[in-house]
Amino acid sequence: MGVMRISHVSLSVMDIEASINHYVNVVGMYLTHKASDGTAFLKCWDEWDKYSVVLTPSDRASLNHVAYKVENDSDLDLFERRINEYGIKTEMAPRDALPFCGRALQFRLPSGQIMYLIAEKEYVGKAVGVLNPDPWPDDRHGAGANFLDHCLLVGELNPEKGINRVVDTSEFLKATMDFSLSEKMMYGPDASVLGGAFLFRGAKPHDIAIFGSTGPGFHHLSFFLEDWNAVRHAGDIMGKNRVDVESPPNRHGVTRGETIYFFDPNGIRNETFGGLGYPSYPDMPEITWTPETAPRAYFFHTLRPLESFATVFLPCS
Amino acid sequence: MGVMRISHVSLSVMDIEASINHYVNVVGMYLTHKASDGTAFLKCWDEWDKYSVVLTPSDRASLNHVAYKVENDSDLDLFERRINEYGIKTEMAPRDALPFCGRALQFRLPSGQIMYLIAEKEYVGKAVGVLNPDPWPDDRHGAGANFLDHCLLVGELNPEKGINRVVDTSEFLKATMDFSLSEKMMYGPDASVLGGAFLFRGAKPHDIAIFGSTGPGFHHLSFFLEDWNAVRHAGDIMGKNRVDVESPPNRHGVTRGETIYFFDPNGIRNETFGGLGYPSYPDMPEITWTPETAPRAYFFHTLRPLESFATVFLPCS
Amino acid sequence: MGVMRISHVSLSVMDIEASINHYVNVVGMYLTHKASDGTAFLKCWDEWDKYSVVLTPSDRASLNHVAYKVENDSDLDLFERRINEYGIKTEMAPRDALPFCGRALQFRLPSGQIMYLIAEKEYVGKAVGVLNPDPWPDDRHGAGANFLDHCLLVGELNPEKGINRVVDTSEFLKATMDFSLSEKMMYGPDASVLGGAFLFRGAKPHDIAIFGSTGPGFHHLSFFLEDWNAVRHAGDIMGKNRVDVESPPNRHGVTRGETIYFFDPNGIRNETFGGLGYPSYPDMPEITWTPETAPRAYFFHTLRPLESFATVFLPCS
Amino acid sequence: MGVMRISHVSLSVMDIEASINHYVNVVGMYLTHKASDGTAFLKCWDEWDKYSVVLTPSDRASLNHVAYKVENDSDLDLFERRINEYGIKTEMAPRDALPFCGRALQFRLPSGQIMYLIAEKEYVGKAVGVLNPDPWPDDRHGAGANFLDHCLLVGELNPEKGINRVVDTSEFLKATMDFSLSEKMMYGPDASVLGGAFLFRGAKPHDIAIFGSTGPGFHHLSFFLEDWNAVRHAGDIMGKNRVDVESPPNRHGVTRGETIYFFDPNGIRNETFGGLGYPSYPDMPEITWTPETAPRAYFFHTLRPLESFATVFLPCS
Repeated sequence: MGVMRISHVSLSVMDIEASINHYVNVVGMYLTHKASDGTAFLKCWDEWDKYSVVLTPSDRASLNHVAYKVENDSDLDLFERRINEYGIKTEMAPRDALPFCGRALQFRLPSGQIMYLIAEKEYVGKAVGVLNPDPWPDDRHGAGANFLDHCLLVGELNPEKGINRVVDTSEFLKATMDFSLSEKMMYGPDASVLGGAFLFRGAKPHDIAIFGSTGPGFHHLSFFLEDWNAVRHAGDIMGKNRVDVESPPNRHGVTRGETIYFFDPNGIRNETFGGLGYPSYPDMPEITWTPETAPRAYFFHTLRPLESFATVFLPCS
Repeated sequence: MGVMRISHVSLSVMDIEASINHYVNVVGMYLTHKASDGTAFLKCWDEWDKYSVVLTPSDRASLNHVAYKVENDSDLDLFERRINEYGIKTEMAPRDALPFCGRALQFRLPSGQIMYLIAEKEYVGKAVGVLNPDPWPDDRHGAGANFLDHCLLVGELNPEKGINRVVDTSEFLKATMDFSLSEKMMYGPDASVLGGAFLFRGAKPHDIAIFGSTGPGFHHLSFFLEDWNAVRHAGDIMGKNRVDVESPPNRHGVTRGETIYFFDPNGIRNETFGGLGYPSYPDMPEITWTPETAPRAYFFHTLRPLESFATVFLPCS
Repeated sequence: MGVMRISHVSLSVMDIEASINHYVNVVGMYLTHKASDGTAFLKCWDEWDKYSVVLTPSDRASLNHVAYKVENDSDLDLFERRINEYGIKTEMAPRDALPFCGRALQFRLPSGQIMYLIAEKEYVGKAVGVLNPDPWPDDRHGAGANFLDHCLLVGELNPEKGINRVVDTSEFLKATMDFSLSEKMMYGPDASVLGGAFLFRGAKPHDIAIFGSTGPGFHHLSFFLEDWNAVRHAGDIMGKNRVDVESPPNRHGVTRGETIYFFDPNGIRNETFGGLGYPSYPDMPEITWTPETAPRAYFFHTLRPLESFATVFLPCS
Repeated sequence: MGVMRISHVSLSVMDIEASINHYVNVVGMYLTHKASDGTAFLKCWDEWDKYSVVLTPSDRASLNHVAYKVENDSDLDLFERRINEYGIKTEMAPRDALPFCGRALQFRLPSGQIMYLIAEKEYVGKAVGVLNPDPWPDDRHGAGANFLDHCLLVGELNPEKGINRVVDTSEFLKATMDFSLSEKMMYGPDASVLGGAFLFRGAKPHDIAIFGSTGPGFHHLSFFLEDWNAVRHAGDIMGKNRVDVESPPNRHGVTRGETIYFFDPNGIRNETFGGLGYPSYPDMPEITWTPETAPRAYFFHTLRPLESFATVFLPCS
């Protein structure tokens, strides 16, 4: 019952062919459909649903929406009621309004992004199949990303005006969709301002995260890799393909994940994220990061700040 | 709501000091309590509850019981009702009947093992704490196991007599406690006999598994390691400590996990299990292994059978 | 000046196509030439000479010879003199007697195998080229072996008759070709019998090794892999290709190398060997393994003996 | 015969205790001697000679000298003659002029640094011993560096004035001490200026390297780690110890080594360098890097330049 995982991220991109090339040959996805309007649908090899990334041609890059999948169709009715009761309007889009999906519950997060909940998406199957499967497919390519892992949103944070969309969206996700908080980053002189929140539904350290900044934005979409060795392989692939890597291999303090941040041809930040980190459960004690150690929370291996990481975001539709 | 994870395995052991030494210095656990009767309680560094292994002095080695943790205390009432309705008797043990635990729902699985469900266990905390934590503790030692991951039970399988405790226990876990099946191993000339079942509640490939054999038994308890490199480290530690390793590093076909099987000083089989493998969700398609490839299902890297793996089990109390 | 490294191993094989398939698709070599008589020449991606494995069609599998490369052509004259003075006959084969090679100094080791020394072999180049090279080639495949690393010979050891070809060949290699001993395995009640010797010329732990047994034989040829992660990948490739793996991933005590032993379609033992282990220099203290720990010397991760490893050899031409 | 490897780097440091703490607890060395004047001698666990780093108290940080070890004492006479014939003055320091060393041949490289050649240094032994050794010592600590691998010098490069100490020192090392060039970095509009040279004597990709810049300097000393996994461990250790990491884990284009650059408490750049990369031999084709790809030559995983890497050096005594 309830939200299972991130299902897809829908992005507007400027150069659709360069973008497809990036998600296929660098990230390692598979193109599963291309619509007549040029919209591309891609999945990772270990995903069984039709797509986890949608790229729509546009004259500027932006986030269209993020979608999460729930276990049962009836969950959509439950969440519709809960979200409305929370004071946020929803719209139930009919089957196929989101391509290859059943009906979809749409709403806008307090931080400004459009979110969908869906219960059905066309089944394609893992690349390794379900009968005596190999541990990975023979045609694994690029960084060989296993699956879309999570996304990180940006919301307005202005304590002087009493605005904190990190709090607002976190509380909303917890109250209406039973997300739990795994880690939080506190800011301000007395570490009293929640500036970063990591939330989970499954047993991974996070399924969604939100940071505070100047306004609504999208920070990155993140793809899971098996481990630290897969992270090196991903780095090698990015080097071979002259990808704009913002942060070479490092360890996160938050989640312990092993990370590379890089940009697709539209300047949309991607992450490859290695390893489980730790399994999350509702009774896991919350982890707190205080301001003086915030840089280590992001990049544990170095004390030198990475300015672009805190300032470069994608706008939202 | 519901079962979250394995909470502990309780074992009777012959040489308590040698056993403690094994779980501390080889597996990498921490002794958190030693009772006046000699019973030892141990936890891994990334666990927050008081213990995940209990060792009770005895004149023979056996499984006492396995315990799983549920999210809410009220879940115990729900599962009591469901299990009774399923036709299996339960007993609600009072607080502290299981040391350091709240009330505990006890019952016997169709395959013969005693299982407990608990909702509370004394909180100790992760070794790295919850404030600006390091990714691993400075005093990590031995194989440095992160947490108890799962256990594998053995039940009677006698198709000629119509007995299949693999089916019985799997169906029971699914019907009463909402477990899902991730992978299944089929036997028999037409691959129609379920001989091995892997079930999950969280997002890991399995939280419990059961194999068919001559009767009730316990196959192994398994500890999670970060990745393949941690598996090599574990192998090095076992070599240094002259541990009886049954199967050196290998890849499972089932779950894709990276594995070492080894025995504690009582002949109780342990596993160190590296990597997430894949995340499980209720909508993940079931994976099937057919008889001709069964050896690869266990040990993907070699075709040579390992006879002891299928024949050596621990008796159950 | 002097011997640089192993240059190739020449093997007689029964099924040439199955053998080529094995060395290409499992080991990861490249076929660089196929002669009119069916003889196949293969190299690894990081080697620059024309071949490191030669496969000649035959009705039985055997070792034809091993070849080592010296730095200068004039070294061949030096070694011819030294070897003759040592009391072993040599023959200087003319250019192209060994295909694609300059003149070749041939002789028979005390342990019975034919060895060649060469100074020239046709240059092909690394797969990544010499101008701004990538760290590995895009068409890396199979286990992706970097280069042929070493071979292990078998010689007669019969202390009762005063025969020890391990001593004889080791002394010969040291006296005539300036090999140094890195590690030695001692046998017998007082650990006085040299039963295994590991010798090097370059900075790797060994370039050649010899074990004692019933008579002349060839134990294995070994291919270098980057590290433990590449060893897992190799194991996955062998699993996918149903290769007969004798020993899944393990750590050697001797050399610390990370190893898999497996057989090609002719029953010829191969090894993939991961990591440098340690750099060897003439002033490195010799390492000694005594009989009681001999099993750990081979396979550090397990105490269980692997009988075939000590009894299955390839005959020599 | 000839130069075997780097033997030690002698550094002047300001805070000797903080420096010892760094090389012991971060790098993972062992303090083997502390002289009455406060000079500290340290070795790595897999080295057998008394020390590979010397720290002498001073009021400023600088390079005192680098020392390389030759195979035989008579090699010193040979190199004295060759170097004098090359036109560079030498001085033969008596036994113990360099502490714990035999006589030492001193000279100044064309690029300005003092180099010593020695044939003897007090033997201490590897931490794992020579009898049935474990693959690594139980008291391995910090980043657990295996051994000092190489150093990188800086020499004046001023093509307009016809000054190129990269060429001068490379030619000197090749002509007098039989070093070979593995890789070279070319600069200038027609890629005709040698701006970086990597030279080897053993089978590792480099034993010494030199870059061109404004004048004599010392760029870094580098410690070998087993593999990429050990690089992550080193990064974790640096994060735990708040080390000033200049460049988190990355892959070199040159040598393929896996690297972290970081500074000791005196601002002296260290490197941890993972993996063999490839074995070098005199017949290996030279690798050339052209100006447009120079950034990738250093850091293959990212295109973003690291300015401090090209501008921050240590002065030479």
